[in-house]
Amino acid sequence: MTTLHELIRVARGEKPAELVIRQARVVNVFNGEIETADIALTGGMVAGVGEYQHALASIDLQGRIVAPGLINGHTHVESSMLNIDQYAMAVVPHGTLGVVTDLHEIANVAGIEGLRYMLGASRRLPFEMYLMAPSCVPATHLETSGAELDSKVLAGIKRWRGVIGLGEMMNYPGVLFQDRELLSKLDLFRDTVVDGHAPGLSGHDLNAYIAANISSDHESVGLKEAAEKLRRGMYVMIREGSTEKNLEALLPLVTQETFQRCLLVVDDRSAADLLHDGDIDAVVRKAIRLGLDPVRAIQMTSINTAVRFGLKRVGAVAPGYYANLIVLDDLDNFVVDMVFHHGCLVARRGEALFEPPAFKDSRMDNTVHMKPFTTKELGIKAGNEVFPVIEVVPGQIVTLKLMEKVIRNKNGFVCSDTSRDLLKIAVFERHRASGNIGRGLVRGFGLNRGAVASSVAHDSHNIIAVGVDDADIETAVKSVVAMHGGLAAVENGRVIASMALPIAGLLSDKPLEDVVVLLEKLEKAARSLGSELPATFAALSFLALPVIPELRITDLGLIDVAEFKLIDT
Amino acid sequence: MTTLHELIRVARGEKPAELVIRQARVVNVFNGEIETADIALTGGMVAGVGEYQHALASIDLQGRIVAPGLINGHTHVESSMLNIDQYAMAVVPHGTLGVVTDLHEIANVAGIEGLRYMLGASRRLPFEMYLMAPSCVPATHLETSGAELDSKVLAGIKRWRGVIGLGEMMNYPGVLFQDRELLSKLDLFRDTVVDGHAPGLSGHDLNAYIAANISSDHESVGLKEAAEKLRRGMYVMIREGSTEKNLEALLPLVTQETFQRCLLVVDDRSAADLLHDGDIDAVVRKAIRLGLDPVRAIQMTSINTAVRFGLKRVGAVAPGYYANLIVLDDLDNFVVDMVFHHGCLVARRGEALFEPPAFKDSRMDNTVHMKPFTTKELGIKAGNEVFPVIEVVPGQIVTLKLMEKVIRNKNGFVCSDTSRDLLKIAVFERHRASGNIGRGLVRGFGLNRGAVASSVAHDSHNIIAVGVDDADIETAVKSVVAMHGGLAAVENGRVIASMALPIAGLLSDKPLEDVVVLLEKLEKAARSLGSELPATFAALSFLALPVIPELRITDLGLIDVAEFKLIDT
Repeated sequence: MTTLHELIRVARGEKPAELVIRQARVVNVFNGEIETADIALTGGMVAGVGEYQHALASIDLQGRIVAPGLINGHTHVESSMLNIDQYAMAVVPHGTLGVVTDLHEIANVAGIEGLRYMLGASRRLPFEMYLMAPSCVPATHLETSGAELDSKVLAGIKRWRGVIGLGEMMNYPGVLFQDRELLSKLDLFRDTVVDGHAPGLSGHDLNAYIAANISSDHESVGLKEAAEKLRRGMYVMIREGSTEKNLEALLPLVTQETFQRCLLVVDDRSAADLLHDGDIDAVVRKAIRLGLDPVRAIQMTSINTAVRFGLKRVGAVAPGYYANLIVLDDLDNFVVDMVFHHGCLVARRGEALFEPPAFKDSRMDNTVHMKPFTTKELGIKAGNEVFPVIEVVPGQIVTLKLMEKVIRNKNGFVCSDTSRDLLKIAVFERHRASGNIGRGLVRGFGLNRGAVASSVAHDSHNIIAVGVDDADIETAVKSVVAMHGGLAAVENGRVIASMALPIAGLLSDKPLEDVVVLLEKLEKAARSLGSELPATFAALSFLALPVIPELRITDLGLIDVAEFKLIDT
Repeated sequence: MTTLHELIRVARGEKPAELVIRQARVVNVFNGEIETADIALTGGMVAGVGEYQHALASIDLQGRIVAPGLINGHTHVESSMLNIDQYAMAVVPHGTLGVVTDLHEIANVAGIEGLRYMLGASRRLPFEMYLMAPSCVPATHLETSGAELDSKVLAGIKRWRGVIGLGEMMNYPGVLFQDRELLSKLDLFRDTVVDGHAPGLSGHDLNAYIAANISSDHESVGLKEAAEKLRRGMYVMIREGSTEKNLEALLPLVTQETFQRCLLVVDDRSAADLLHDGDIDAVVRKAIRLGLDPVRAIQMTSINTAVRFGLKRVGAVAPGYYANLIVLDDLDNFVVDMVFHHGCLVARRGEALFEPPAFKDSRMDNTVHMKPFTTKELGIKAGNEVFPVIEVVPGQIVTLKLMEKVIRNKNGFVCSDTSRDLLKIAVFERHRASGNIGRGLVRGFGLNRGAVASSVAHDSHNIIAVGVDDADIETAVKSVVAMHGGLAAVENGRVIASMALPIAGLLSDKPLEDVVVLLEKLEKAARSLGSELPATFAALSFLALPVIPELRITDLGLIDVAEFKLIDT
């Protein structure tokens, strides 16, 4: 940030601007107009918008569009599996110059050090990262996470530079039931913004949740639900991610009366989508295709986001704002060409023009701490004839709880039964080397041989594996351990595809393109083993999340979500 | 503020509300709708809006309107001449439940102690007072004020509870010329909001002023001027005060695209207007009469104000917000009936239902420190035949600078000349007993005998007097001194009307009605002395303000405003 002295001098024309962007058609988010003007930049900021010639350098846009850099108001960076530097390389060329993120994935693994790492790394990158302190780490008491962020720890995090509020309060039942520790967290962040996560909440419960100072939501799937949340005072984040897609259903919420209370966000965005479709710019394009005025779509990813979060000096092309700008050929196609961050051209025609500086924290490299195990420990004893089975629902993250008769091997242990698609599933605690292994059965993967394993397993990110036989499960898990985290597919004792995620067991150190290629190979390998799921590893990653109905598995065992407790098999 | 625990329980219906306001038609500032609903209150806050029965007490509104308490986004409380308790008694019944104020009048007299007094006193009253720290105390170096608030002092004030930003930066030339001390102040408040005061600023200079982090303005008089300020990123405060009236001219600025960047404010509001017309509610009424949608007018005095200033938990009728509510019979007439502050009924049918607690600070009672003087010291020596004369322009605060031939008495001193309406004017330093007296001539008052004097003399609030002869000036000034500040009219050595302003020499300790009666008597007295001005004492109060063209007088002497320096007579 430059000095006021410098800004004023350049704005007044007393001193040449470092750069003047001439003849821009500027998207004005304050009044909705498109204004032809010059933009004078100095010291990374916009000094003036209007008629400016006096400059050390200039670019003549000849009437092309300039809009404020896009701000993604809710996303989990880790969903991309990219380290933060490669994430920036991936999203900045799409015009994303601000990211409001709740890093609860890495926080579940590496706690406060994980957050420090991500914030530290982001500071050297050409975008602004704003951290919403994760509110629910661990997500539940029914699993073993790598860290716990209680209200005392959060009080420290709240004071960090870059921390702007409390992240999505996923444990909405806990809020409604007045869990003491949750209310302490909400009290702590009473003077900031708190993001919500309130799927289906309505009426009295919605009032209660909002009364607790939770002022946004991104979980609405229907118009009526979203309208009620907006009416009661929430900012509605219309989510269009890789998993959940709500834009089409919620777009009618955006009217002249309500638009300033609406944001566009992605929540999660896979590497493949980032590569093939884009980031928040893809959501803007889709909104325009669906009929939204382009200026509105821009407002909903810039000034509205800045106002909702109280972000300073971003979200508009105006004097005193950071020179975070995107250049487009036209509004309707919304293809981002040039991207300026703090006045520097950092991307052009989809290519990043910056080289992220090296930023290492060795504590992130070695987060897999697992007690050695043998296949013997994978044996499932079952007292009853029927046994609970997790049924995967293709394309959804909910599961069903089945009760199935099972077959047993010669030692009396429950076995996989490929004829009925009943496969062994296991979760291996990997943070504290406790030796915890949760064991169970799953239907829906369709493997007829081999195994798959992953250290991405929401939200505690233990190692989860599904397989036909215990030996292949062992091989897959040990492959993941050997990589310090990652994904693996195994056939007949041999790793046929894998990707290391050495940073906290969650993030690759490779560029976007490599990650996409490796993921495609993994999916192909899973299909070769018989998988019938559209995204095998994504499906796998959600089976350890005990806040989504009906049946889940953690390192502690099978979880009945409705009863919110471990099942005694 | 109640606990989250309590709020959640009441919102969920687990515990009865302290009060349910039933069958209200609630003005929803988020979506612009009017919604019939019950409002459940507890611990001074709104727990829920919707269907609520479970309550210790209830009021059935049978379809009458409930709107959020009004927030006046820019006003100088001292303009009312009411002490803060009486001010609250005057404005709360009009629905004003939030006041954003820049107390630069009392700050010029009593500095940091004056601000402390006002904030302290306001904390016990049924409205929220938000202080914008005065940025320009003293207004200029051409006068003697009672205090100076430099950036070091402001750094302390910034940390006070209730201080939300930096008040109107009136010295806009200083900003444009990069005055070092002003830029220090702006830097200090870089992470907060800063209000502007930029009459007529445009183009490069407007860019420069905004680039310095100044993000609102209330000085626009024309639509084009206001539109440019909004376009460049300022919140536009549409001012309709007792002196300046801009509503009619600026209302066309408010469109579907821009409304959320517009606020309604009063800037200053005289006691007479408060009594006869109202406070910010009067501006809302006028806006509705001029064709503005009532819901818009409410948004522009509630949620928009809250968003602009980052005020928490005010500006809407919604769960988790303070139960600051007003009840109206209908929207079109906008007559405030019931007023709830923190859930308590504090006014009804224009009558305050609260008794302000006593709050005294003896340091405010004795702020007039003047060196004794005799009429001899009022003599004006003039080297030249012509002498500068301040010409008052009726109904405006600008003055003209005339050069007139003057008459002299037997001792060679310049005298009043009632035949040409040339009267003696003098400003007596009253903070430090320095003995400074500024002397000059004024045209426009029309007095043919006697004198008037006042300790309200913007911005330094020394004692200013105008009179036909020196003896009456002396009597008037000494009367003001004897009252520890106030207003006086004198005829033939006798005080014919007066009002004490014992609090800092600016504020009465009487109720609104008494102040209005006394002011009317003073004006009547002035007219009986020959005054031709519509508001003699108001006109008098602006003649010592050396930032308004063309000729002014301070305790240091006559000031040529264009040249921004003392005139050597």
